[in-house]
Amino acid sequence: MAEPLNIALAGLGTVGAGVIRLLDANAALVARRAGRPIRITAISARDRTKDRGVDISGYAWEDDMTAMAARPDVDVVVELVGGADGPALTLARNAILHGKSLVTANKAMIAHHGLELAEASEKARVALKFEAAVAGGIPVIKGLREGAAANRIERLYGILNGTCNFILSTMEDTGRDFADVLAEAQAKGYAEADPSFDVEGTDAAHKLAILSAIAFGTRTDFASVETAGITAITAADIAQADALGYVIRLIGIAEVDDHGGMPRLFQRVQPHLVPFDHPLAHVDGATNAVVAEGNFSGRLLFQGAGAGDGPTASAVVADLIDIARGDLGGEAGAPFSIQVAEMEEMAPAASGHRLGRAYIRFLVADRPGVLAEITAAMRDAGVSIESLIQKGRAEEGGTVMVAMVTHEGPEARVTEALRLLDGSDALAGRPLVMQLLGE
Amino acid sequence: MAEPLNIALAGLGTVGAGVIRLLDANAALVARRAGRPIRITAISARDRTKDRGVDISGYAWEDDMTAMAARPDVDVVVELVGGADGPALTLARNAILHGKSLVTANKAMIAHHGLELAEASEKARVALKFEAAVAGGIPVIKGLREGAAANRIERLYGILNGTCNFILSTMEDTGRDFADVLAEAQAKGYAEADPSFDVEGTDAAHKLAILSAIAFGTRTDFASVETAGITAITAADIAQADALGYVIRLIGIAEVDDHGGMPRLFQRVQPHLVPFDHPLAHVDGATNAVVAEGNFSGRLLFQGAGAGDGPTASAVVADLIDIARGDLGGEAGAPFSIQVAEMEEMAPAASGHRLGRAYIRFLVADRPGVLAEITAAMRDAGVSIESLIQKGRAEEGGTVMVAMVTHEGPEARVTEALRLLDGSDALAGRPLVMQLLGE
Repeated sequence: MAEPLNIALAGLGTVGAGVIRLLDANAALVARRAGRPIRITAISARDRTKDRGVDISGYAWEDDMTAMAARPDVDVVVELVGGADGPALTLARNAILHGKSLVTANKAMIAHHGLELAEASEKARVALKFEAAVAGGIPVIKGLREGAAANRIERLYGILNGTCNFILSTMEDTGRDFADVLAEAQAKGYAEADPSFDVEGTDAAHKLAILSAIAFGTRTDFASVETAGITAITAADIAQADALGYVIRLIGIAEVDDHGGMPRLFQRVQPHLVPFDHPLAHVDGATNAVVAEGNFSGRLLFQGAGAGDGPTASAVVADLIDIARGDLGGEAGAPFSIQVAEMEEMAPAASGHRLGRAYIRFLVADRPGVLAEITAAMRDAGVSIESLIQKGRAEEGGTVMVAMVTHEGPEARVTEALRLLDGSDALAGRPLVMQLLGE
Repeated sequence: MAEPLNIALAGLGTVGAGVIRLLDANAALVARRAGRPIRITAISARDRTKDRGVDISGYAWEDDMTAMAARPDVDVVVELVGGADGPALTLARNAILHGKSLVTANKAMIAHHGLELAEASEKARVALKFEAAVAGGIPVIKGLREGAAANRIERLYGILNGTCNFILSTMEDTGRDFADVLAEAQAKGYAEADPSFDVEGTDAAHKLAILSAIAFGTRTDFASVETAGITAITAADIAQADALGYVIRLIGIAEVDDHGGMPRLFQRVQPHLVPFDHPLAHVDGATNAVVAEGNFSGRLLFQGAGAGDGPTASAVVADLIDIARGDLGGEAGAPFSIQVAEMEEMAPAASGHRLGRAYIRFLVADRPGVLAEITAAMRDAGVSIESLIQKGRAEEGGTVMVAMVTHEGPEARVTEALRLLDGSDALAGRPLVMQLLGE
């Protein structure tokens, strides 16, 4: 058997420990598939003495991650430190600078600095791989970058955050409210102590920006992802969606709008109503699922565990096996499927002209004339209402819920209708708008 | 941009024409992703003059496929002729012999001769790729071979035949019977004039044998796949399954039975009862879906169009892009993930000791004592019945349906119970047995 592939591991949190466990448990089959053993030579983390449940005594310890990236007995640096900037980015730059391939699970870093790192890796002719950065153990980067490579991708969308999906599907199953289920998710370790990164949609937006770049050949543009989270969704919204034949899921969606021959990139993370007969309606718990619609392949669906040490380690080691096999992703890299120099800088698409159907929910004062005021605003903005339900009984605080689904129309009209209602004393709080996921 | 990758296309049926259409429609993006253009230099098929809806005037025509494989202006031969043996196999052997990489959509050839061809390709250091042979446009070969490569696969199963799935899900939606829906599928082009290859399970068994080899590192063993088709399934079975909370799907399933330290390969294609809450229960129409359960990744699901010219062409060209990029699947090939010399020859597992729950359906004479006879046989064979339904009204021919679901137990007991009932004049026709798909 050939020489081992020597790797250095930076960051020994749950994923780092998972990688060590995997390389230990599956050593023989990984070596057989990779064509050679994959061997950890050096490790680095903040705390040398912490018990991580794995034996690290056999690896050289480096307090200085930068020194680790320069070691001659290292072929690949595995960055599991996390954070868009700081030590992770310094390590990544240094690793490539020293001619090492880089494998990372760091979605924030790739969403923000992926192009810089990809360009450096293309120049250095080393591999840059980040399968674990998106959707845990699901090989969706590979699926898009290689499996669907023959296709123009017409639309890309999916469930990209397991925490939100756990919360929404648990609310659905139990009828409980957001705050209650969030607390359970935190207790179970599915949500962080500070959950805002997940529940506000930022994490999903990072992943969407990475997938968009690969799918459409556009430069990553995290800043332009329209992002809304799930914190405003109530048990009543979920019950209402159910009555209409939908479940609520946080969906990241991206596509290229033709825009009269001046293509624009549309990227949005937002809760959507997903019809019962859509495959994504059956994605429950902390699962991720990504759909890519290719002009020849048709609809491809990739689904699995979106996070966790085991699945993430599976993706990290898959990247290492590719590198061990010599499959670096093309003669000169191209981590994003095409070389950075050829990736297109595409202006973000405005969403106003997009056609769609929307669910709009108001909490309103329980008094005469409110419905007339809302429906008049819809009429004046040109929003056509398909169905409207007012729940008869006032909820606490004397408000009742009015929920409607619109016929297909430009999103700008809904925005205009809400602008007309802005400041009305009929409304208790901001209305909630969710798009219906189209076929 | 680098030199083009020159390919020769053998076979110009719907898939061959699809590949030409794809390389034409998506030429620019394929070249950008591949790092160089992919160019058809020569083609070969039975009939030169047939109108295929694509312009073939720009390609060199070869009447002799073998000569085509020897052309110096060909880097890759794409075999789309079909058939396990005959011209396809001769072409494949010749292509590799002449140092050409081979891309094929031919599941029968790979199931029967894949190891021989893989060994030859490893020796010749050319690529052998067959993504299009399994599950159309879904990158499941890549998903298993590369995406899930870090895992011991614990179980592999899926819906591998789009024709059967179209028929079963249409029977389900419409309440119509098998023969009626088959006729519709034939009219729509979803089923062949002679449908036996699909509806008897052979096609799914070919695909399962290929996936097993990649997932488990075992030598392909098509002959040992236990295969049953869907022809015996009636509208009443589907209604009965629905009442119990299941849909019926033709499932190919494979796993390695430990067998007391002497591992055996279990491979079966059989209609299964799939619980409503399982992702495969929502796979409708001519769709394929494959689940791989890895020991670190957990459950991975790949789903999409299982056949058709577009999806199959997408998979063929994905293989070509890999080759153009220089990703040949490892220094010395290994089309089945590990080199052929290291693949294990594993004896087939007997199914008798397998634990599971079964649906057993009898058509019986409508007279006293029949139920007693059946239940006595179950008792004597040690089969524990969870639920039993006899439909009250005699159907035509004076028979009634008795359907039961067993508690978990060894499959051999069910076989024994049916043996005890064999020849009984209470039974009208052979009982139908389907396993329940476990979690």
